[in-house]
Amino acid sequence: MDIFFEIITTLAAQFQKPTLAFLMGGMLIAAMGSKLEVPEPVYKFVVLLLLLKVGLGAGISVRSADAMSLAVPAICAALLGVVIVIFGGKILAMWRGVSNADAMATAGLFGAVSASTLAAGMAMLDSEGIYYEGFIGALYPFMDVAALVTAIFLARMSAERRAAGTVQSDGTATMSSGGGGFGFGGGFDGQLAKGIIVDTIKSPAISALLLGIGIGLLARPEAVYESFYEPLFRGLLSILMLVMGMEAWARLSELKKVAHAYLIYGLTAPLLHGLLGFGMGLVAHHFTGFSAGGVVLLSIMAASSSDISGPPTMRAALPEANPSAYIGSSTGLGTPVAILSIPLFITLAELVIGF
Amino acid sequence: MDIFFEIITTLAAQFQKPTLAFLMGGMLIAAMGSKLEVPEPVYKFVVLLLLLKVGLGAGISVRSADAMSLAVPAICAALLGVVIVIFGGKILAMWRGVSNADAMATAGLFGAVSASTLAAGMAMLDSEGIYYEGFIGALYPFMDVAALVTAIFLARMSAERRAAGTVQSDGTATMSSGGGGFGFGGGFDGQLAKGIIVDTIKSPAISALLLGIGIGLLARPEAVYESFYEPLFRGLLSILMLVMGMEAWARLSELKKVAHAYLIYGLTAPLLHGLLGFGMGLVAHHFTGFSAGGVVLLSIMAASSSDISGPPTMRAALPEANPSAYIGSSTGLGTPVAILSIPLFITLAELVIGF
Amino acid sequence: MDIFFEIITTLAAQFQKPTLAFLMGGMLIAAMGSKLEVPEPVYKFVVLLLLLKVGLGAGISVRSADAMSLAVPAICAALLGVVIVIFGGKILAMWRGVSNADAMATAGLFGAVSASTLAAGMAMLDSEGIYYEGFIGALYPFMDVAALVTAIFLARMSAERRAAGTVQSDGTATMSSGGGGFGFGGGFDGQLAKGIIVDTIKSPAISALLLGIGIGLLARPEAVYESFYEPLFRGLLSILMLVMGMEAWARLSELKKVAHAYLIYGLTAPLLHGLLGFGMGLVAHHFTGFSAGGVVLLSIMAASSSDISGPPTMRAALPEANPSAYIGSSTGLGTPVAILSIPLFITLAELVIGF
Repeated sequence: MDIFFEIITTLAAQFQKPTLAFLMGGMLIAAMGSKLEVPEPVYKFVVLLLLLKVGLGAGISVRSADAMSLAVPAICAALLGVVIVIFGGKILAMWRGVSNADAMATAGLFGAVSASTLAAGMAMLDSEGIYYEGFIGALYPFMDVAALVTAIFLARMSAERRAAGTVQSDGTATMSSGGGGFGFGGGFDGQLAKGIIVDTIKSPAISALLLGIGIGLLARPEAVYESFYEPLFRGLLSILMLVMGMEAWARLSELKKVAHAYLIYGLTAPLLHGLLGFGMGLVAHHFTGFSAGGVVLLSIMAASSSDISGPPTMRAALPEANPSAYIGSSTGLGTPVAILSIPLFITLAELVIGF
Repeated sequence: MDIFFEIITTLAAQFQKPTLAFLMGGMLIAAMGSKLEVPEPVYKFVVLLLLLKVGLGAGISVRSADAMSLAVPAICAALLGVVIVIFGGKILAMWRGVSNADAMATAGLFGAVSASTLAAGMAMLDSEGIYYEGFIGALYPFMDVAALVTAIFLARMSAERRAAGTVQSDGTATMSSGGGGFGFGGGFDGQLAKGIIVDTIKSPAISALLLGIGIGLLARPEAVYESFYEPLFRGLLSILMLVMGMEAWARLSELKKVAHAYLIYGLTAPLLHGLLGFGMGLVAHHFTGFSAGGVVLLSIMAASSSDISGPPTMRAALPEANPSAYIGSSTGLGTPVAILSIPLFITLAELVIGF
Repeated sequence: MDIFFEIITTLAAQFQKPTLAFLMGGMLIAAMGSKLEVPEPVYKFVVLLLLLKVGLGAGISVRSADAMSLAVPAICAALLGVVIVIFGGKILAMWRGVSNADAMATAGLFGAVSASTLAAGMAMLDSEGIYYEGFIGALYPFMDVAALVTAIFLARMSAERRAAGTVQSDGTATMSSGGGGFGFGGGFDGQLAKGIIVDTIKSPAISALLLGIGIGLLARPEAVYESFYEPLFRGLLSILMLVMGMEAWARLSELKKVAHAYLIYGLTAPLLHGLLGFGMGLVAHHFTGFSAGGVVLLSIMAASSSDISGPPTMRAALPEANPSAYIGSSTGLGTPVAILSIPLFITLAELVIGF
């Protein structure tokens, strides 16, 4: 009973955090039909600054980190990205009215990472004075790229298998793609995988993040980091949360057009993925001393779904997938649910690991 | 003689304030034909940040304010909005060549509030270290909504009465809107008033302000307020003043197309409205201890004319009114005259009340 | 050998400066085909803030500077602008495939000044704690206007002479423009020169700078300067360097379409012009005690080529010149070479003058 009360109190305090207040405020004014808007170029710039901030911070930290304490969380992050997509895709595709491409595109976005959600997590840990490894930002691309590559790859393999099957039953054509042993029995197409990885790295979000990491690692950007990127972080995040909230509300309506599966998935997946991330983080905590704050951020990354770079990547790679389905469920539901569950992961870490 | 000298000295010092310098600089470079421009999305974002800042500050202050000291200035603000519109509209409509719709649209904008003018007033009081109630920003919507609703309402009533009159003289139709006792003898249309209020609240400026007030009131945004919104305030205001100055110059030319009445009204109304606000504030000062700084800000709100949310609201609600008339006189004359008269109200408060 | 080692060490340390790192990072991600972009309105706003910052700083400093220590560097700056254009234009026009108009437009841009390059130089001196005269920003328009006016004037004179020559050989028309003694034997057309000066002053960059200088000189913007423009300077510059790097890479490809002359000129001119500026600065140092940091900034201004206001001015004034040639060589090569050579001028000043 005491523990229950403690959880409630902690959660109540968390919900007064401005980060969540701006998110909910954005949803509220969008629901009320407000004509307020944050201009697109400004929104893009705010995202760029946050990505550079996260990247620079990570790059500066990686400089002094030892390889082992970096490698274990990085492998965990990549594994999480793959696992979330494989299971999410399988489960979603079981539902009636959900095509395989739609299932994979949706699971791919939920496996990928949202910079704004991660930034919100960092800001909330910062404001509580909870320590986390500075290099966490460097884990982002591992999970993000792993998830997007897995999703697009599996969707294309499956499409090709089906096409091959159709053709074979006609008895007129031979299978063009070789066999192989990549999980689902499709052939592993190195060229395809490489293409997806290159495309993902070229996406604005990942390249801004990698640029920040590179400059943080190779140059000495501490002065500009501490005088500009760090102090503006919290404020820019409040603006971003406002946009996320308004955007979430606008996208929610898209879900009316698609199967109920997406509604259920969008509401529950962030929590399940976050718990999966928490479990992985716990393992890293026990073996390499990964911090409790780091475990929270790994959970948040796993819980988050891509909102900036993911959708255009999906649109380009899987044109047959329905954007209403995957953007509606990720931006409309996944992102706000993930952000609103941040206090949950903090509370969980406090109970299980302690700060 | 001494008092006169004191006024001159105080005014001279005020005019070296960067707020006014940027406004006059903007007018000057526009007059010189400079091709400098502040991109529209950036300008919108700067306004959003200032409105959130004013709102957050007000919301945080309202939390600890008692109902009475809030209610009196709020009623004064709403009253000012109504009075300015009724008298302004009457007086303007007397001039030859001024239609009733144009008179009401213009008086409506002069009764409404300019966030940038209010922000300029706050910055100038801040830089002098003059105290004012933090909740002042929360008075903005009272005056703004009251003015816009009154103006649109009276204009529509008058149009309907005239239409009814025309129809009646034809002897073919019955009056469709009932009588009633709303000031000018027109029927009070609750549906219409509600529609205007809802539209005004949905406007970007008012919803940003209300969002800020709500978050300030219900969440704990002190950290982000003090680390982001507050420090950026002064600098963003300098940019906004630059835009206001350039915009004022560009709009001035529109006044060439319309009656001289607008020129005279635009030049004198801000001062008269400011003095009206000063008088109301003085009453609140004596009865509820409203601060001298608060009286100055109430005067400035009354003196200011809407430059962001007002014009589009008018365009939508009174399509028959001529934008050259109401935007030319408010943005071209009203706003710069109001901003440039801020030092006057500060000096007046110093002489009459003392800081 | 020791000196050589010292130079290498100093240069190596300089290249870890974030200013250069962001420039090179921008070029790198553009070369890799990243889809990252800084939205145009944001970029324009960042430039505006930097120009206002440089102008305000200069204006504040000019207030307390004596006329002599101002006049000598200003004359040096204007002279540099004229000399660079005359020699650059002559040399470029000697090459095969380079028209006179193209040569003049290119030399004009290289003689004009880049605000971002100057700002990068200031930031790098600031971070080393090297003193320079605050009024340096006020020298910018002298060099910029002198270079643009000289280039456009000479190009038009030459075009007119050629046209007159053609006409005369027909034997049907008389020369319309009189002779005179303006260097190249063309007639000095006061009206034309005045027109170019007015156009240049109306350009966004120069008018923003002059606005800043004016406000710094006549008002008291110290508070807003120190609380907003100064602290944001370094961070905004990092964004600008990123844009410059991406832009440089994008423009480089234009050079494929034009003569090799532009490639050679773009690579070597910034260094030669910088050394010319260094020499002039050295003279000012000996005669009026112009600081070593000031000499560095004069070199950087001379080395830089106009990237914001120059190209549109050229396009309007010399429509017959080929933008691929002058923008490719200035923005694609001149600007990055100038920025990357900043450490060189700092090292040179350390060796020759000492800080």
